[in-house]
Amino acid sequence: MGPIIKNIRSLRHLRDYKNKIETYIKDLMLKARNDGHEEVVDLSEHILLAGGKRIRPMLLILCYEMLGGKNLDEILPLATAYEIIHTATLIHDDINDNAKIRRGVKTIHELEGQAKAQITGDWLFVVGFGLGGQYEKDIVDIMSETCSKMASAELKQIEHIHDTSTTIDDYYSIIEGKTAGPFASGCKAVAILTGQDKKTQDALFNFGMQLGLAFQLVDDLLDLIGDDRLGKPRGLDILEGKMTLPLLLGIQNLKNKDKDKLLDLISKYHLQDLEEILHLLKISGSIDYCRNLVNEHLSSAIRQINFINDNPSKKMVLELAHYVRSRYD
Amino acid sequence: MGPIIKNIRSLRHLRDYKNKIETYIKDLMLKARNDGHEEVVDLSEHILLAGGKRIRPMLLILCYEMLGGKNLDEILPLATAYEIIHTATLIHDDINDNAKIRRGVKTIHELEGQAKAQITGDWLFVVGFGLGGQYEKDIVDIMSETCSKMASAELKQIEHIHDTSTTIDDYYSIIEGKTAGPFASGCKAVAILTGQDKKTQDALFNFGMQLGLAFQLVDDLLDLIGDDRLGKPRGLDILEGKMTLPLLLGIQNLKNKDKDKLLDLISKYHLQDLEEILHLLKISGSIDYCRNLVNEHLSSAIRQINFINDNPSKKMVLELAHYVRSRYD
Repeated sequence: MGPIIKNIRSLRHLRDYKNKIETYIKDLMLKARNDGHEEVVDLSEHILLAGGKRIRPMLLILCYEMLGGKNLDEILPLATAYEIIHTATLIHDDINDNAKIRRGVKTIHELEGQAKAQITGDWLFVVGFGLGGQYEKDIVDIMSETCSKMASAELKQIEHIHDTSTTIDDYYSIIEGKTAGPFASGCKAVAILTGQDKKTQDALFNFGMQLGLAFQLVDDLLDLIGDDRLGKPRGLDILEGKMTLPLLLGIQNLKNKDKDKLLDLISKYHLQDLEEILHLLKISGSIDYCRNLVNEHLSSAIRQINFINDNPSKKMVLELAHYVRSRYD
Repeated sequence: MGPIIKNIRSLRHLRDYKNKIETYIKDLMLKARNDGHEEVVDLSEHILLAGGKRIRPMLLILCYEMLGGKNLDEILPLATAYEIIHTATLIHDDINDNAKIRRGVKTIHELEGQAKAQITGDWLFVVGFGLGGQYEKDIVDIMSETCSKMASAELKQIEHIHDTSTTIDDYYSIIEGKTAGPFASGCKAVAILTGQDKKTQDALFNFGMQLGLAFQLVDDLLDLIGDDRLGKPRGLDILEGKMTLPLLLGIQNLKNKDKDKLLDLISKYHLQDLEEILHLLKISGSIDYCRNLVNEHLSSAIRQINFINDNPSKKMVLELAHYVRSRYD
């Protein structure tokens, strides 16, 4: 019962923060609606309000408080900027992946066509940068650099679609750019905002990076062993040709007929093959290896902020880190 | 000979400014390349360095000097931000329009597919906002608001593709958002940057808006009566179902068989019908009407800045305004 109780308690603590973010986003959309942007707001809200976990903005607010920040109005625009830019990239990625479902609802390009989905993503980028652009130059620079790296990582991911010879280095370079980098950048931006020294800024960056890597690995695992009720069906990464770490390690570790079988099942993926793929991955040890890696990245994340004195917000930051893992517990 | 001589002189005056912008853009891309963004830089440079007119950044630099600005380093990032965001929208629009050619070269999605073109556009948005985000909050706000309106105008344009019942109001609302708004916003941002009072800020906004409307109307006319060597073939707007003002006025003004003929030719457009469409538009008076409108918008633009004392840079701003019209002289 231990982990479940812990999980429920974390969620209750975190819910207040999540509500504040939801309210901020809704107010922002209402203002844009009143400014004459009804159509793009409708399209945006379809995904933006479809029930994201809000991990990124919650993390930023909690880090802000952990570092002594007292004024929610100071951090909410920044936290929301990261969430909205994240949503913009989801909408654009979904076009490229031809994804049908996002956050449990149909994707915008499925409902309204590619052009409108693209414009909606563009608009959300603009809104996100409009929020982020209010901050000092160092923060704008780090946001811009992060988004720049996201684009390069997406291009690299496209190069490696269906590429079973993708290396572990390639994999890490892609997820550092796409997922972990924005976590790292957000945490560092909060350190800048609260006037921390260079050492603390770097520690927060590394904390975010390790947490983000864990987060992406959990996502990779959930695609294989997750709950279909989470909003998208399992096996989607395989279908889209995404070389996740469990798959790459499975290919690397298996030999002879098992390896050939796995490569064959991945290359012409059908949903009914998922259990057999999973069986081969378990034999290869890649699932357990990835679970251990998640723990290692989380431990490493927590070590980065060891030097920060205990306080109630730090406790919640740590709970959020544990929540990342609890998604498949 | 008068207009030609004037035109050549303007171009010579303006060339120095254009060179400064080209150098700034190239340095920016080189820096990004050295920061590990080779692929997205290659894709971006394909369009970014394919010979744009640089009207927007030139206009901003000249307005800056007209208003007493002395430090090019202060204005170049802002001017370039507007050019780069403009290029990002071109790349994304070209995907939606399925355009084959831009600035005389193949579009990115034609060469490299939709996903890479989309990511390249996203990256250029990020670069543009990274540059703009260095400025004071009022400037960031106006940039963000402008880009927001661009997105809504693009959605409205999509709604009216192939819609021959598009009204003149619809048309103006689309081109104000897509083309003229960014001109207006850039000119106002320069007024803010140089510390002008509210009246001057508004005058610069209105100047940019009127100039931008003239610019778009010239573009509309060039699609019909322009020179195919300009980098894209004539008739593309008709092919893409864009309801430009000359077409809308033609539909509005013609009667009976002529009107039916025009509607028919527009709806199943083939290149060989362009001359017949042009003939019908000339009969309708819409071409001459639009030429007059260009002059009216230009005169109105110039009136907005009448109160600003003559200086060499103001002279060049006015020359740039005249250059807008000279594109079809």
